[in-house]
Amino acid sequence: MFKRVLQKPDGRLLLLYSATALPAELEAPSPPGTPGTGGHLRWHPLRGEWVAYAAHRQNRTFLPPPEYNPLAATTDPAVPTELPAGEYDVAVFENLFPTLSMAASRKLPTALLPTAPGLGVCEVVVFTQDATATLGSLPLWHIRLLLDVWADRTEALGALPEVHYVMPFENRGVEVGVTLHHPHGQIYAYPFIPPIPARELQCQKEYLDANGTGLLQDLLVAELDDGQRVLRADEHVLSFVPACARFPFEVWVAPRRPVALLHELEPAERASLASALKTLLLTYDKMWGRPFPYVMVLHQAPTDGVAHPEAHLHFEFYPAYRMPGRLKYLAGSELGAGVFTADAEPEAVAAQLRAAQERLA
Amino acid sequence: MFKRVLQKPDGRLLLLYSATALPAELEAPSPPGTPGTGGHLRWHPLRGEWVAYAAHRQNRTFLPPPEYNPLAATTDPAVPTELPAGEYDVAVFENLFPTLSMAASRKLPTALLPTAPGLGVCEVVVFTQDATATLGSLPLWHIRLLLDVWADRTEALGALPEVHYVMPFENRGVEVGVTLHHPHGQIYAYPFIPPIPARELQCQKEYLDANGTGLLQDLLVAELDDGQRVLRADEHVLSFVPACARFPFEVWVAPRRPVALLHELEPAERASLASALKTLLLTYDKMWGRPFPYVMVLHQAPTDGVAHPEAHLHFEFYPAYRMPGRLKYLAGSELGAGVFTADAEPEAVAAQLRAAQERLA
Repeated sequence: MFKRVLQKPDGRLLLLYSATALPAELEAPSPPGTPGTGGHLRWHPLRGEWVAYAAHRQNRTFLPPPEYNPLAATTDPAVPTELPAGEYDVAVFENLFPTLSMAASRKLPTALLPTAPGLGVCEVVVFTQDATATLGSLPLWHIRLLLDVWADRTEALGALPEVHYVMPFENRGVEVGVTLHHPHGQIYAYPFIPPIPARELQCQKEYLDANGTGLLQDLLVAELDDGQRVLRADEHVLSFVPACARFPFEVWVAPRRPVALLHELEPAERASLASALKTLLLTYDKMWGRPFPYVMVLHQAPTDGVAHPEAHLHFEFYPAYRMPGRLKYLAGSELGAGVFTADAEPEAVAAQLRAAQERLA
Repeated sequence: MFKRVLQKPDGRLLLLYSATALPAELEAPSPPGTPGTGGHLRWHPLRGEWVAYAAHRQNRTFLPPPEYNPLAATTDPAVPTELPAGEYDVAVFENLFPTLSMAASRKLPTALLPTAPGLGVCEVVVFTQDATATLGSLPLWHIRLLLDVWADRTEALGALPEVHYVMPFENRGVEVGVTLHHPHGQIYAYPFIPPIPARELQCQKEYLDANGTGLLQDLLVAELDDGQRVLRADEHVLSFVPACARFPFEVWVAPRRPVALLHELEPAERASLASALKTLLLTYDKMWGRPFPYVMVLHQAPTDGVAHPEAHLHFEFYPAYRMPGRLKYLAGSELGAGVFTADAEPEAVAAQLRAAQERLA
């Protein structure tokens, strides 16, 4: 992996990555606009969690026409985008409208609740220079490079003392609120362990303490033995509809070895993971013969300076649809009670996905 | 409040409520279809929560044309709906496609995770016979009656030994997945304390143990003192944008006295609550001059046979939009991390809502 670290004229970081050597002349552009300095956090006393406020985000770029794609390479220096022209495969830069920023103001609003600066980092990860590509359509070497980029950023952001958790994710499709169609994801580096990973880590820790083995590790063995919900398995990685899927067509992709952080994966594991992700993404799109919107998140170990032997990294995919043309809405039971109600059983979902997967060849 | 308990031909319960005496002749119809017997629960080991599966719900009624409105009174006996013709104001019946049911099969799928029958009750609450009304447009006496109905059902469902938590809620608008436009809400009676109320109760219990006063009770006093986010206050009830709002335009409505359950409210408190709910709902619709979609949930004490001095009932409203025409999507940070990112600060939101409220008169 080749990497170039640049600074944009407006002060933000830009990283360019490539599978082959990068050209010497690569200059970082900045589109018009003053970078937001991040927001602030307020404590939700009834739920015991932080909420992030970033008022400057309200006017962020919203579905601009193709000629104003800020994630495309700059072709006219008079109209700078976020990225330079030139040969590179993946680009990472700090969000112009960040929710969290190391430049977040320490001046806090007077509030009747505990508040904190919105410290952290919000990065945009441009998967490819091809605006019409999809993550799944990229060649294996390119997806493998993206894994290396996520690993590189996890390690770098996690090394910041303020950052306690790094989460790469992708929101795909207008159905999940995507405002720019160029294939890209994001990385949020939080100044605390967010509640969902915290809950998962707590459950994993209790299991490890009680059993001496990893919760997800044992679950992978059980899923593989059972077989009903397995989509793809090789020596290193398992893709499956979990027996406790909350979203329709939810899939998890995990290394079989309980690796805590992306940058701790061995090369062979990264290769398997790239292949598993590509197969799943092509399967999703194949199933109904149309792009399949989803939210993809990576859960890994915190970077809070404490050992996390309970952590086992895995990707979780939350699709937007429950049937063709019918969205899965989160409503009263999901949002108000936290109880997900699923219309389809995981075994039936896995059978549908496997049938689509067989049609890939 | 007048009440009639009936049984539908298909065996389901139907309750009719009225502010005035009910006529003698009211017969319960059943539309075609065999009632679902509920689903089953599976334990999500990584999140430590139950997920509910109900495969029969996949083919439930979806936006039927007005002439097939199952929530309208039956006018042609050959085409029975869920409700009879006749004079009544509010109706409650068991959902034809329930996620949870007391008739849920005890025969469980073999699964590699703990499973349990989907015991509980899912009820539909038809707010009015007027298919074109909205909850906020109903006269005060009618909303007050609905509060009495929710209280009555909370008490009756909570008395079932299998039911540990009763949650009335309303999903309003196609934006939150509503499949029938006739004004209605739902009541879910869960066989466990769901994770979100459980978390709130835990935070409330810790606060009560440490301070000797209620968390929400003290928060209401602080919000009232601060005043910036208060929408409406009277002797008994406060409506406000919480300083820690997670959804744009989120509003809480709570009795100032720490009442645990709806049926424990005094008549004067119920009257204030009806008035506060009506004002808020009219304000929402007034703000942008169009129906304002939301999810409304009521959090109250569990009915698990244990005392809950920490519980303080309150309504939470989660609106669907962040700006006119721009939905608030729950994506990577919200769904994958549990960190809500808000574009607008609660103080600015409250000012907008107050301006709309002033235009009501």
